[in-house]
Amino acid sequence: MKKYCFGVDVGGTTVKIGFLKTDGTMLDKWEIKTNTENAGELILEDICKALDEKLAEAEIGFEEIEGVGIGLPGPVLSDGTVLKCVNLGWGVFNVEEKMSQMFHGVKIKAGNDANVAALGENWKGGGKNYHDIVMITLGTGVGGGVIIDNKILTGYNGGAGEIGHMHMNDQETEVCGCGKKGCLEQYASATGVVRLAKRFMEKDKNTKMTELGDEITAKDVFDLAKEGDAGAEAVVCQMADYLGRAMSHIAAVVNPQAFIIGGGVSKAGQYLIDAVKSTYQKTCFSACSEAKVHLAELGNDAGMYGAAALVVGE
Amino acid sequence: MKKYCFGVDVGGTTVKIGFLKTDGTMLDKWEIKTNTENAGELILEDICKALDEKLAEAEIGFEEIEGVGIGLPGPVLSDGTVLKCVNLGWGVFNVEEKMSQMFHGVKIKAGNDANVAALGENWKGGGKNYHDIVMITLGTGVGGGVIIDNKILTGYNGGAGEIGHMHMNDQETEVCGCGKKGCLEQYASATGVVRLAKRFMEKDKNTKMTELGDEITAKDVFDLAKEGDAGAEAVVCQMADYLGRAMSHIAAVVNPQAFIIGGGVSKAGQYLIDAVKSTYQKTCFSACSEAKVHLAELGNDAGMYGAAALVVGE
Repeated sequence: MKKYCFGVDVGGTTVKIGFLKTDGTMLDKWEIKTNTENAGELILEDICKALDEKLAEAEIGFEEIEGVGIGLPGPVLSDGTVLKCVNLGWGVFNVEEKMSQMFHGVKIKAGNDANVAALGENWKGGGKNYHDIVMITLGTGVGGGVIIDNKILTGYNGGAGEIGHMHMNDQETEVCGCGKKGCLEQYASATGVVRLAKRFMEKDKNTKMTELGDEITAKDVFDLAKEGDAGAEAVVCQMADYLGRAMSHIAAVVNPQAFIIGGGVSKAGQYLIDAVKSTYQKTCFSACSEAKVHLAELGNDAGMYGAAALVVGE
Repeated sequence: MKKYCFGVDVGGTTVKIGFLKTDGTMLDKWEIKTNTENAGELILEDICKALDEKLAEAEIGFEEIEGVGIGLPGPVLSDGTVLKCVNLGWGVFNVEEKMSQMFHGVKIKAGNDANVAALGENWKGGGKNYHDIVMITLGTGVGGGVIIDNKILTGYNGGAGEIGHMHMNDQETEVCGCGKKGCLEQYASATGVVRLAKRFMEKDKNTKMTELGDEITAKDVFDLAKEGDAGAEAVVCQMADYLGRAMSHIAAVVNPQAFIIGGGVSKAGQYLIDAVKSTYQKTCFSACSEAKVHLAELGNDAGMYGAAALVVGE
C-alpha cells in the first residue's frame, strides 16, 4: 500500500476534495466549484488539475498515490460506469477509465455518493466498529447505503440502499419526487417532517408549531418536541414510526450489525435515535433486535473518507 | 476442482443427500432418517456413514471429493458455527470442523437451509441466469435467502433473508409464531392464505370457499380464484398485495436482478406471479422495476444443489 490517496465527493454545486494518508488521516481538504456547463465536460479535468496542484504544493509524486476514489450523484455500476448523473449533466460512460487516463494512469474507483458516504462512516465514523452497516441519511431527501463486509452493496442497477423510496404508506395522496406515493422520504426527510407538521396543524392548532407557521423547519419540530410540545412530539413520533418500520424491513433483508443515522435531521441527536429505536424494537425480527443505532460522525466529510476507502479498502 | 461432491439437506424428520459431479450433475439422491434422540448427537455420524457407504458402492475414494455442503434448519455463521437448531436438538458448535474430523478431513461448508435452497436455485434452478437473486419460499411459513454475486448474504446473526418476519401490518391482532404481530408469514404462507380466506368468509359467505369450510387449503383458494370465484380472487389479491409490497421493500435494500418464488404455495404458478408483480410494480422504486419474478424449479432438491454449491462455488 502506498502512502497517500485522494477522496473526492462530487456534488451539483461543489466538489469536495480530501488528501489523505492511506491509514485514513485527513491531511488537507478543500472545495472547488462544479462546472456543469457543456454537459459537465470539464468536471473531471478540473478535479485532476486540483489534484496535480496539491501534489506539486506538497512535493509529492503521483507514484506515491495509492489511488483516487470519487463519489458521484447518481447510480454507478461496479465497473465504474455512471448511468446518469442528472445534476452534473453527464451521460453514460466509464468514469474510472476516463479519469485514470487524465491522471497519470493512477487507479480510480467510483461509487454512488450515498453509498460512498456510508462507506466513509463505516471506515472512520459512527460505523467504524462494525463490518455490516446500513447508513440512512435524512436530508432534503432520504438516502441510504448498505455496507457488507466493509464493502458497498451496489445492487443490479446501482439501486441498492435506495431506502428513501421504500413504500411505507398505501394511503398517501401526495406524490413523491420519484413519481410514486407513500415513500419513506415523504415522512422521514427534513421536508417530510415539515409536511407531517403542517398536516398536524391543519387538524389541531393547539401546538406551539403554529407560531412558526409555514416557515417551520424540521429542526423547529424536534426542538419543540424536546421542550414537551405535545403536537411536535406527535409529529416526531409519526416520523420515527415510519423510519423505525423501514429499518425493521431492512434488517429482515440484510441483518446489519448497526444502523448509522446521518444528514441534517440527525442533528436532533439521541432524542431521534431513541424514538426510532422504540418502533424498530417493536417491529423487527427477534434475531435482528441487537442491531445498534448510532449517529453519523463525519458530517459533510463522510463522502471524502468513503471515496478514499474505495481505493484503500481493496 | 475435484470431480465429485455431496450436498446434504438436513431437516427435522429426514436428511436428503445428493451425490453430484462438481459441474452440478446429480448422480444419485436418497434420504435417511434424522435421529434427533440425545440432542441429535448421532445426526452427523449417520450422515458420514451414509456418505462412506455411497463412496464404497461407487468405488470412489474420498480424495476425489471436492467437499460436502450441508444445509441446516437454523442460523449458521460464516465460520460454520450453528447458533441453535431447535428441530435437531443441537446447541452451539462448529459443524464444519466437527464433520470434517468425522469425514477424512474433507472440506465441509455449512449454511442455513433457506439460504442454501436460494443458492441452489441460483446455481441450477429458476435463478441460474442471474448472480443477484432473492428467493422467497412460501410453505407452511415464509422463508427467504439473499444471494449477492452468487454467494449467500448471511447477515450479522445469520438473520439476513428472514423476510417471513418482515412487519407488514400494524393492525394485525393475531400473534405470529415469532411472537410479534403483522409478519409477512401471516399472510403469504400456506397457513396465511387459509387465515385470510377464513377471515373473508367470516364477513362474506357469498363465495365457493364456504363449501370447503374449515378444511380449506391454500391450493383450494388459488384453484377457486383461477375459476373466477370473486371471494377467492379477493383473498389472492390481498395475499399478493402483502407479498408484492414486501418484495418492493427488499428491492429498495438489495436491488436484485430477480426474485425466485418457491415452496408449496408457488404451485399456483404464473397466476400467483402475475398477481404479485402487479403490486410490486406499483410500489417499487423505479430503478428496481426491471427485476424479474420467476418460479423456483428445483422443488425439494434445491437444498441439495445449494449445499453442493457451497463447496463448489468457492
